[in-house]
Amino acid sequence: MSILVVGSVAFDSLETPSGKRERVLGGAATHFALAASFFTDVRVVGVVGEDFLPEYELVLTSKGVDTTGIERAPGKSFHWTGSYVKDLNEADTLATDLNVFAEFSPKIPESYKDSEYLFLANIDPVLQAQVRAQMPNAKMVAGDTMNYWISAHRENLLKVLRELDVLVINDKEVRMLSGETNALVAARKVLELGPKSLVVKYGEHGSAAYFSKDSFSDGETRKLFRAPATPQEEVVDPTGAGDSFAGGFYGYIASQGKLTPEVFRTAMFYGCVLGSLSVEEFGTARLQRTTRAEIEERFQHLKEISHL
Amino acid sequence: MSILVVGSVAFDSLETPSGKRERVLGGAATHFALAASFFTDVRVVGVVGEDFLPEYELVLTSKGVDTTGIERAPGKSFHWTGSYVKDLNEADTLATDLNVFAEFSPKIPESYKDSEYLFLANIDPVLQAQVRAQMPNAKMVAGDTMNYWISAHRENLLKVLRELDVLVINDKEVRMLSGETNALVAARKVLELGPKSLVVKYGEHGSAAYFSKDSFSDGETRKLFRAPATPQEEVVDPTGAGDSFAGGFYGYIASQGKLTPEVFRTAMFYGCVLGSLSVEEFGTARLQRTTRAEIEERFQHLKEISHL
Repeated sequence: MSILVVGSVAFDSLETPSGKRERVLGGAATHFALAASFFTDVRVVGVVGEDFLPEYELVLTSKGVDTTGIERAPGKSFHWTGSYVKDLNEADTLATDLNVFAEFSPKIPESYKDSEYLFLANIDPVLQAQVRAQMPNAKMVAGDTMNYWISAHRENLLKVLRELDVLVINDKEVRMLSGETNALVAARKVLELGPKSLVVKYGEHGSAAYFSKDSFSDGETRKLFRAPATPQEEVVDPTGAGDSFAGGFYGYIASQGKLTPEVFRTAMFYGCVLGSLSVEEFGTARLQRTTRAEIEERFQHLKEISHL
Repeated sequence: MSILVVGSVAFDSLETPSGKRERVLGGAATHFALAASFFTDVRVVGVVGEDFLPEYELVLTSKGVDTTGIERAPGKSFHWTGSYVKDLNEADTLATDLNVFAEFSPKIPESYKDSEYLFLANIDPVLQAQVRAQMPNAKMVAGDTMNYWISAHRENLLKVLRELDVLVINDKEVRMLSGETNALVAARKVLELGPKSLVVKYGEHGSAAYFSKDSFSDGETRKLFRAPATPQEEVVDPTGAGDSFAGGFYGYIASQGKLTPEVFRTAMFYGCVLGSLSVEEFGTARLQRTTRAEIEERFQHLKEISHL
């Protein structure tokens, strides 16, 4: 079944301990779409400038991603400049040039309207809500956010959270959103804000899912699931790891068509796999050359290192 | 099969967000012995002062722990004063009164000499080596250490590491010992120092085992295992969590009599269970009232939250 993702399609200029790259293809929707494309059809809503040349679009379309909903606007694409030289786990933002993204107003092509799975990547919650309202028949809605929206646009964000089946954020965002430091107490508070389920990304420590009584229609008794990450010999570029996780996770769920506890748990493992692949090269390079066989191999590896 | 553990038997004065306690029973060997006692016979070598009243000894002997090797010396027992008020994950040491522990010279009772499993808890590596030398027939040796020995007594520690089947330390100690920040690279460097296997404790993120070609006699191909931790609603007192982990881990191994990959992995889960129990009350209180049924219940829970 098809996923519609709305979010940034951008260029990133990056410095990490492994080197520097100028203006590589990036953006949350890009990483998400590539990761999800291994599992299901993906449709992107976003905006780019005149610098988004056909070679960049081909990165998406060659994986079967539908780019009809990527609007072309006069000017330049969103451009983020960041460094991970001090700390691979935390980006140091050097410049954020919103460019055409500053005036982004998501428009959903008619051909996208039958998408059953909606993913609201990290953008202004006002825009997330607009997209949600235009997709009344979506059978499942998941989303991401970030520290800026949590602290400065909290009220708008809270409206979006009430509409989500799954919120996928990192542990710092959970603490910020809940005001709690204990992981279990924090997760419970976030679930009280509306999302039926919460997925927390812990970087090299994997991820956790916290469930509410509304997570599954057939009543799962487990309140929690914990997935490991594959330790990485070298993290070349962490940019987009979280979006790739979300893409692998949600792509698998959409491919199954039914959200059972087992599908959810398996999706967490696929999220870890896609996240671990994405950091091995700059930008989207690693996901571009990933094969489905590699994904299955890593999935088995994750199972081996975590199952008795 | 019997475990001989050498280490501190002490009193702790503690302050945590949950409250304050004066002079509760503590020490690495105490926490280790209580945790391991659920699985196998445990014999303790340590030293205490005149303040170690019969009621404290009873905490150990009532669980079947052999205290013959706990020497009585004139003066006071080792007393540690620490606070976790700022950060539950890191103790702030306010005072370390070594007292009788300052002159500790481990003596192994004749009745302990047939112990097949030896655990060298966190003490001066010179003493660890002395104990190791007195137990030439031990079939398995595991040990712990801490930042102080790693930085200030490195050469002595390196001699001990070469003799270990398993080193059980936390992630900060791994980074300090290896000089590496990447978890996989750091683990490989530590294994090159001698231990056949390395177990790394990550606090709320569980633990990992890193294996070398010498970890198992029957040749395991997995190089890694990752065990989760049970998220805790409230951590009352983290003191001794790592020692309780080690006790549960090593106690289970000793109870099986043979170190297979499956026994090792299962032992990691039991380590997590005992560690999670120990932090729920001050000092040894929670382990004192733990039942084997509770341990099995938590073991099953850990499996449920980590297995697909």
